[in-house]
Amino acid sequence: MRAMKSVVIVGGGFAGLNAAKALNKLADVQVTLIDRRNHHLFQPLLYQVAMAGLSPADIATPIRSLLAGQQNARVLQGEVNGLDLANHRVQTSFGEVPFDYLILACGSRHSYFGHNEWEQFAPGLKTIEQATEIRRRVLLAFEKAERSADKAERKRELTFVVVGGGPTGVELAGAIGEMTRFTLVRDFRNIDASLARIILVEAGPRILPMFSTEQAGKATRYLESLGVQVWVNSAVTTVDAEGVQVGDERIDAATVLWAAGVEASSLGKLTGAETDRSGRVVVQSDLSLAGHPNVFVAGDMAAAKSEEGKPLPGTAPVALQQGQYLGKLIREELRGNPRQPFHFVDKGQMATIGRSRAIVEVGKWHLAGRFAWLLWLVVHIYYLTGFRNRLFVVMQWAWSYLTFRRGARLIVDKEWQFHGKG
Amino acid sequence: MRAMKSVVIVGGGFAGLNAAKALNKLADVQVTLIDRRNHHLFQPLLYQVAMAGLSPADIATPIRSLLAGQQNARVLQGEVNGLDLANHRVQTSFGEVPFDYLILACGSRHSYFGHNEWEQFAPGLKTIEQATEIRRRVLLAFEKAERSADKAERKRELTFVVVGGGPTGVELAGAIGEMTRFTLVRDFRNIDASLARIILVEAGPRILPMFSTEQAGKATRYLESLGVQVWVNSAVTTVDAEGVQVGDERIDAATVLWAAGVEASSLGKLTGAETDRSGRVVVQSDLSLAGHPNVFVAGDMAAAKSEEGKPLPGTAPVALQQGQYLGKLIREELRGNPRQPFHFVDKGQMATIGRSRAIVEVGKWHLAGRFAWLLWLVVHIYYLTGFRNRLFVVMQWAWSYLTFRRGARLIVDKEWQFHGKG
Repeated sequence: MRAMKSVVIVGGGFAGLNAAKALNKLADVQVTLIDRRNHHLFQPLLYQVAMAGLSPADIATPIRSLLAGQQNARVLQGEVNGLDLANHRVQTSFGEVPFDYLILACGSRHSYFGHNEWEQFAPGLKTIEQATEIRRRVLLAFEKAERSADKAERKRELTFVVVGGGPTGVELAGAIGEMTRFTLVRDFRNIDASLARIILVEAGPRILPMFSTEQAGKATRYLESLGVQVWVNSAVTTVDAEGVQVGDERIDAATVLWAAGVEASSLGKLTGAETDRSGRVVVQSDLSLAGHPNVFVAGDMAAAKSEEGKPLPGTAPVALQQGQYLGKLIREELRGNPRQPFHFVDKGQMATIGRSRAIVEVGKWHLAGRFAWLLWLVVHIYYLTGFRNRLFVVMQWAWSYLTFRRGARLIVDKEWQFHGKG
Repeated sequence: MRAMKSVVIVGGGFAGLNAAKALNKLADVQVTLIDRRNHHLFQPLLYQVAMAGLSPADIATPIRSLLAGQQNARVLQGEVNGLDLANHRVQTSFGEVPFDYLILACGSRHSYFGHNEWEQFAPGLKTIEQATEIRRRVLLAFEKAERSADKAERKRELTFVVVGGGPTGVELAGAIGEMTRFTLVRDFRNIDASLARIILVEAGPRILPMFSTEQAGKATRYLESLGVQVWVNSAVTTVDAEGVQVGDERIDAATVLWAAGVEASSLGKLTGAETDRSGRVVVQSDLSLAGHPNVFVAGDMAAAKSEEGKPLPGTAPVALQQGQYLGKLIREELRGNPRQPFHFVDKGQMATIGRSRAIVEVGKWHLAGRFAWLLWLVVHIYYLTGFRNRLFVVMQWAWSYLTFRRGARLIVDKEWQFHGKG
């Protein structure tokens, strides 16, 4: 019998969770998954929480539950503060954890390109907390407009700016458009929610640069049909409490959302390895660190390349496949088999705009419109983790689709105490 | 044609919402409902959110949506800061609102009997924010116990104290018992969740004093079967960060929940009318204030009495019936009909303990056990406001019941920003 091997995984996202699962039933391996959150988050649908279509629990499941049936895995909630790669130890908020293999997969967060002070005015969308904060701001803006008698104030409250024309920005802007035009329109007496101004601001020459020009053009038309103005070649120069500055132009807006750029988790820097401009760790073809063959980086934190030398994007499919690959790599290595380089299987890409439009690209096969949206729906439900979530999300969607309603339109305060408020 | 009458309702709980609805289709009435929250909350199921069984959106619906179809009603989100009863005006955070009729129905909050400093250690359960805070604390306790190597620390983390043996305290304690014994037991590697210590502390001689001694005894046995210790005649003398003091006895507990007493909304004092010990406003038999026949107080804020002179309890059925009564009173008065005194129709009371036990009392008809629980279920689903919520709650329950799982086990931070955290 071989000695017990400790595999430590930091981060319970797509990469970390799938690495753990791929190590299931290996009796001589002890998997320890460390995450500071207790839940795995299905990030591709996070914008639906921000837009009141889904509840947080619909797209988040305790990591502990997801691995409850896996006898060789334990889950510990806590923070990783340091890495001692030479001595094979991870320093955490609850003590040191030794490892034989280490997988770092802590994801990324939004980047404000050196302007972190913008975050308070323009939240990004990476966590459940951020999603409910965005939901709070968007819904509050309508409430404030409804009770305001001042015309300029009303206009400001009903102006929404989304910064960044990638898939998240497009999905957010489309969802705001849909919400104002269909969901909210009956509910207000003093304002016409469908007159809300929604502006998607993109610094580059077009939105969705990872898609073909044609498909991105269709997405633009879908957005415009929902009342979203698409401003390209428009770099945001200032964000403040009153709105944003785009070059010479000032937009007074009560709600600004940030979907413009990401930077890798700061844990990458602790490895001492080379990092790229976005803080992603440069890895070998097997995702290991140079000089540390038993330390791997996966998901949004890794600057991995395809066999053709093209950088791999920070998407869920890449993270998922890297996680599965690393689990398999460790399994095979313990059996004495040599390592194979990571190979990403590109299954295509998709983005959705509003309630019934999407664009899909699978190789040379391009598709847009209602059928693309159905495909988007099926794929996302298929990948949603956990039986219960899948079932509930399908039902929420069916309900929203048929009634034009949104089920989770709650404005929830950050504060839970009431005493001492005066 | 009569002049337009302005009916202002403060508070969108059971009383306020039902008053507004009872005024539907009155063309010469303008209803203005003011609430600082955007949602109506089905409080009888709030403990299910605290115990991760339901999501906040399952039991909360925007007031605006609930009244969307009522043409004579508008909903304004904001705070009421002052009352000018002589000049028939309400002062709000968004200006003054004149009224012909005023209904104050702002509910109640927990009372710490002069020890508001206890709240930070022992949250009460009145709002969605408090429910998610309780959920966070309960789930975090298990996470901390799982990663702790210290035996005393583990014991403290796995000790839960619920203060107050009324229906809310009983439901909370029962739900913790059920969760530890059934839901969490598979998920941990280092701890046995079913060994968690749950103590229900009641100052009076028995729990559920509004029920018969026999029925309360059954509830106690149900609680004990879920591992809950019931301490009666036990007044809490101190609550601090480490636990509670009950007379001579010290309980080290990481989680303390407060369900011991309520006080009426402080708005009652602004009326200048007489208030009772709990801050509830003393009202006439038609729920109006002495000297202000067009100003009414309803729900938890009102110290109303039955025809026999018995004080009415602060429950959902009382608030609901008072709201309906006031809507009807105004409608009839505008038609020239005289006022009738408020008459409460007591349909009985029920409390649930864990996943399949309840006690029900309807007049002399007493019932306990599984069938009582089914009855409890049917009644609560029937009264849940809004078609969507009812449907989803039924499905969540069916799912939880069949799988012993809890769908909303999320630990969500209060903070949403990440930058500047170091």
